[in-house]
Amino acid sequence: MSVRAFRAPVLHCLRDPGDAPDSEHVEHFTDGLLVVNGGKVAALGPAPALLAKLPRGTEVVEFPDRLIVPGFIDTHIHYVQTDVIAAHGKQLLEWLETYTFPAERRFADAAHAAEVAEFFVAELLRNGTTSALVLGSVHAVSVDAIFLAAERTGMRLIAGKVMMDRNCPAYLRDTPESGYAESRSLIERWHKRERLLYAVTPRFAPTSSDAQLQRAGDLAREHDDVYVHTHLAENREEVEWVRKLFPDARSYLDVYDRYGLVRERSMYAHSIYLDEADRRRFVETGAAVSFCPTCNLFIGSGLFNLGEAWRQGMRVGLGTDVGGGTTFNMLQVLNEAYKVAQLCDFNLSPLRALYLGTLAGAEALCLADRIGNLAPGKEADFVVLDAAATPLLARRTAAARKVSEALFAMIMLGDDRCVAATYLQGELAYRRP
Amino acid sequence: MSVRAFRAPVLHCLRDPGDAPDSEHVEHFTDGLLVVNGGKVAALGPAPALLAKLPRGTEVVEFPDRLIVPGFIDTHIHYVQTDVIAAHGKQLLEWLETYTFPAERRFADAAHAAEVAEFFVAELLRNGTTSALVLGSVHAVSVDAIFLAAERTGMRLIAGKVMMDRNCPAYLRDTPESGYAESRSLIERWHKRERLLYAVTPRFAPTSSDAQLQRAGDLAREHDDVYVHTHLAENREEVEWVRKLFPDARSYLDVYDRYGLVRERSMYAHSIYLDEADRRRFVETGAAVSFCPTCNLFIGSGLFNLGEAWRQGMRVGLGTDVGGGTTFNMLQVLNEAYKVAQLCDFNLSPLRALYLGTLAGAEALCLADRIGNLAPGKEADFVVLDAAATPLLARRTAAARKVSEALFAMIMLGDDRCVAATYLQGELAYRRP
Repeated sequence: MSVRAFRAPVLHCLRDPGDAPDSEHVEHFTDGLLVVNGGKVAALGPAPALLAKLPRGTEVVEFPDRLIVPGFIDTHIHYVQTDVIAAHGKQLLEWLETYTFPAERRFADAAHAAEVAEFFVAELLRNGTTSALVLGSVHAVSVDAIFLAAERTGMRLIAGKVMMDRNCPAYLRDTPESGYAESRSLIERWHKRERLLYAVTPRFAPTSSDAQLQRAGDLAREHDDVYVHTHLAENREEVEWVRKLFPDARSYLDVYDRYGLVRERSMYAHSIYLDEADRRRFVETGAAVSFCPTCNLFIGSGLFNLGEAWRQGMRVGLGTDVGGGTTFNMLQVLNEAYKVAQLCDFNLSPLRALYLGTLAGAEALCLADRIGNLAPGKEADFVVLDAAATPLLARRTAAARKVSEALFAMIMLGDDRCVAATYLQGELAYRRP
Repeated sequence: MSVRAFRAPVLHCLRDPGDAPDSEHVEHFTDGLLVVNGGKVAALGPAPALLAKLPRGTEVVEFPDRLIVPGFIDTHIHYVQTDVIAAHGKQLLEWLETYTFPAERRFADAAHAAEVAEFFVAELLRNGTTSALVLGSVHAVSVDAIFLAAERTGMRLIAGKVMMDRNCPAYLRDTPESGYAESRSLIERWHKRERLLYAVTPRFAPTSSDAQLQRAGDLAREHDDVYVHTHLAENREEVEWVRKLFPDARSYLDVYDRYGLVRERSMYAHSIYLDEADRRRFVETGAAVSFCPTCNLFIGSGLFNLGEAWRQGMRVGLGTDVGGGTTFNMLQVLNEAYKVAQLCDFNLSPLRALYLGTLAGAEALCLADRIGNLAPGKEADFVVLDAAATPLLARRTAAARKVSEALFAMIMLGDDRCVAATYLQGELAYRRP
């Protein structure tokens, strides 16, 4: 990889911009130059100044009518549910039984897993997502497949084998010992190979015995730089079930906490039904929440209170949660994140929405030193957005007076068509046909 | 217009299919033939049987890989807010002040109105919407413009001049008398001209004086086949304001009722905050509600309880409510309708969703004898849907075992790209590029 430069309007967040319409924590170059060297950002600034300093003969790719933003970071997605997206009609527990478990069964077959993994990774890139935290099925081969597919693209991806040993069909069960051993073997095989990272992934408390949660906690202790990835307090019926299954726990979060699973690099999807003590525990430990609005609405789970979580200082990333979520596209997820926040009387600013879809995810994953924005030294993962992708969007953004207004129009009216190109480490990974 | 036929899979509702996954009230022809004569449906049935009966030489247009459904009916949309769609950050009353009123002011200019009307009608057709109930601005010229644009396409469109004489900027006020006279003149000019119909349109109770509501009631009485179109109980703050403005009224609905505005062919957008007496009154009178989920979420108004409304026997149509709504596309509005219903613990079946977007709108508008499905004698307005419009949708619908599953996937994953063509009275009005 040699030096290349990209000349375009560029927008990214240096840190959480907060609720103000403008913020010093956001950089916007109307005529920017992003210089990439060896897959990393070498420089970012106004094009006229930086062009003069480029080594002679450096290739400059120009997108004058586009907007470069950091690649989106999807903090919760089930690749093994790609083919049950938009399956009709259930709330959480019935949804799992009816659609999810039969679909996941097929991932015992390595060829099936490889085919879906290939499509899945292509779909991420088509939607401008450059990093994702991914659940496989209970089968170790499913995780091999997704890591292989990701590795071929050069994307930074975190994945793990689901652990579940009860309250699910017999054909999907592992045991505390097999789940431990297979996870450990996957960690040895994949964790930190190229850009790949591993996540210890108990599905959720109801489908793991105490013994299995104990072994998951052992993995998390023995490998403190791997992730923990699971679900928390998504649905009222589920919360009630957990209360019955774990009568001694103070709360649902406390079930995980007792096994050492609440810490930095722990990602709890949903976390809708929390109390004050739970929120404090998130803040104390640095564990993070993945907010998945399209899924929370689709299966009728409820409204995550983003404003409250941020006021308390919790780390929150955004997730598509395919297949319970209804899109791979993070602009569309931000659309519904905005709407859920509105219902909770919290107004999400356009720039903070960008933060939520990019840098906040990196921070939640403790990867903000590598991804999440385009500061020098970061891995050069970025998206080239087209604010004129449809007739309506073109009309709307032509009238925009500020970049935040155009960005917000893309969030509300846009979709995969807004993604003109996706770059991983400065290399073209997807170009819109 | 001569005889033409369309051979394709066809799906439409004969009446409300209810909650069951299948229903005798829905017709599905896997290889259907839709015969059109003089702009109306002459016959619909299985192609093999009907083809034999066609007059020799009849043109047969074939869409073997598509799905023909009735044109969508949008029961609440502001064409004068086309250019403020996706404007950021307010709840209802502030939204009006900040975005809506300044945008509507420009519609005093006939040239501006004509330009927007042209774009707006094209956008409806691009999204498969063949009929709409539309608000203009306070200016009569804005209504002339939208009727002219609609008339050129041959679409069935209902529109009206907004009446408002208080609690709004002086530059947008009419008076009880000028509002009455201009509306009457528009009725004479446009009502029942070709397929066009008029709606008496007091914006909402807070912006009309008692005298103006009285005059709106006079118009509704004097022309009992015109529509009444307004807003009701969208937002808690608004409801509270109405309570203060009309302290003698039993409820917000009762304000309108006292002036004779609650009757058949009355459309009340939103109607989120109703009580039992209000719901009974809707059922008694045949007045209808326009459910506008993308707007209700976008400006944080609340959740309309569709299941409850239907259980009580209320008439409900679906509305985009552009510019507070975030899309012109009724598939996308159905996506969010489904989600809002899920949050209210009501599961909307795929076929009933189709009903909501088509025949239910026709019934709410008392136009079910003319539009809403493709029964013989109806006006032949229809959409040719493409269930393979994106890679994800193509993959998902290829695995669908039933048409309802493919339809639901289009609702959840689809958008304007699913609209391969739109026909008005059997004539091509839009074809996807």
